[in-house]
Amino acid sequence: MPDGLTPEDVRCTNISTVVTALTTAALPRHRVRATRDSGRRTRSALLDAAAELFGEHGLAGVSLAGIAARADAFPSQVTYYFGSKEALFVEAASREVLHLASRVEAAGSRARSHAAYARALTRVALGSPAMLAFAEAMLLARHRPELSPLVTRTLDRLHAEGARAVRARCREMGWPLRGSGEDVARHFWAAVLGLVLERAASGESFDARAAQAAILATLGIDHAPARTASRRT
Amino acid sequence: MPDGLTPEDVRCTNISTVVTALTTAALPRHRVRATRDSGRRTRSALLDAAAELFGEHGLAGVSLAGIAARADAFPSQVTYYFGSKEALFVEAASREVLHLASRVEAAGSRARSHAAYARALTRVALGSPAMLAFAEAMLLARHRPELSPLVTRTLDRLHAEGARAVRARCREMGWPLRGSGEDVARHFWAAVLGLVLERAASGESFDARAAQAAILATLGIDHAPARTASRRT
Repeated sequence: MPDGLTPEDVRCTNISTVVTALTTAALPRHRVRATRDSGRRTRSALLDAAAELFGEHGLAGVSLAGIAARADAFPSQVTYYFGSKEALFVEAASREVLHLASRVEAAGSRARSHAAYARALTRVALGSPAMLAFAEAMLLARHRPELSPLVTRTLDRLHAEGARAVRARCREMGWPLRGSGEDVARHFWAAVLGLVLERAASGESFDARAAQAAILATLGIDHAPARTASRRT
Repeated sequence: MPDGLTPEDVRCTNISTVVTALTTAALPRHRVRATRDSGRRTRSALLDAAAELFGEHGLAGVSLAGIAARADAFPSQVTYYFGSKEALFVEAASREVLHLASRVEAAGSRARSHAAYARALTRVALGSPAMLAFAEAMLLARHRPELSPLVTRTLDRLHAEGARAVRARCREMGWPLRGSGEDVARHFWAAVLGLVLERAASGESFDARAAQAAILATLGIDHAPARTASRRT
């Protein structure tokens, strides 16, 4: 393995990391580290800028040059690190949806009753724009096979981490789990995905109460309005 | 009300119907009818052609001229009847998803057990490309407010007809209904929507068994694989 290329880099499926490591393999060790660290910072700054701009203007409303300018980088660095605007969009959307999953889990870990747990997960998941951007990434991946593996990996992680979290929390608190952790997690995120799309398309006429009821049901809570929840748990 | 303009036309929110009726109001009655019938046929042929072509090539891969050619019409007739390619896409996708809902209901009406009912609904809903096209229409409507009312009306109809169908069938057969008909229908279609998106993005790695379990759960059937279904109902 060339100097400067760690097993982590080899496992990492993002080819630019491997390319950076391979091309810096002939440099002295301290310069390799500096180059790699700088590359990671640029990459991360580009992802941050992309997430902000895509969130504000959508995929079509953002240019590579605009993302580079916001990240204090060159447009050529976007194509170097990500390949295309669409690939950057999918990577930013995947990162954001996994961040959302962490926030959903954190909100659930503070709830003291099963109904409060389900409501916290639902509130945080529906409150974020991340799933809608991820829906757009999924539609994009359909016609761009090279973008599909990242979307699939993100979905797998979303389901696996959701399954682990819901199993652990329900076991810890003695709450019933309807189905396996995997099925509950997959069902929860599919419902969130469908409902954020409905909300995006319907705007003001979206029925938030009914949407909440649909998601609560995936977590085994049928029709638990806030005021009666304490009696049901 | 001008001659040739029926209350149905006035209620109809598609402005081109009203425009056709108003502009033909001065013609003799038999010519009005011929013009209107011919307009409806052209409109319907354009929708059929659009549904086929969009299904084969996606929104971006189809031109107005291509749709017009397939329907034996002029490109200007597409803009006359629908306004834009995107509006035609949303109308075709809305029509297809309501057709899908009818097929789902018909499949359910032949099932003799609750588990078979849930499996029939799930199989037909996940087997069709209509919901994926409708997901694209929903994302389109987000940035095109003029397209949003049709998407919202389609969703309302999907939920209302689903609620009526599931309530009637469960009452007729004495099957339990988890939640109100409205919630079950909304929940079912949201899960279908989320899962067809996942399948589109994941391709071959999509876990069809887990997806089916997620949808079955919306209909109150937890983990009913085909081979044990008869014992559970």
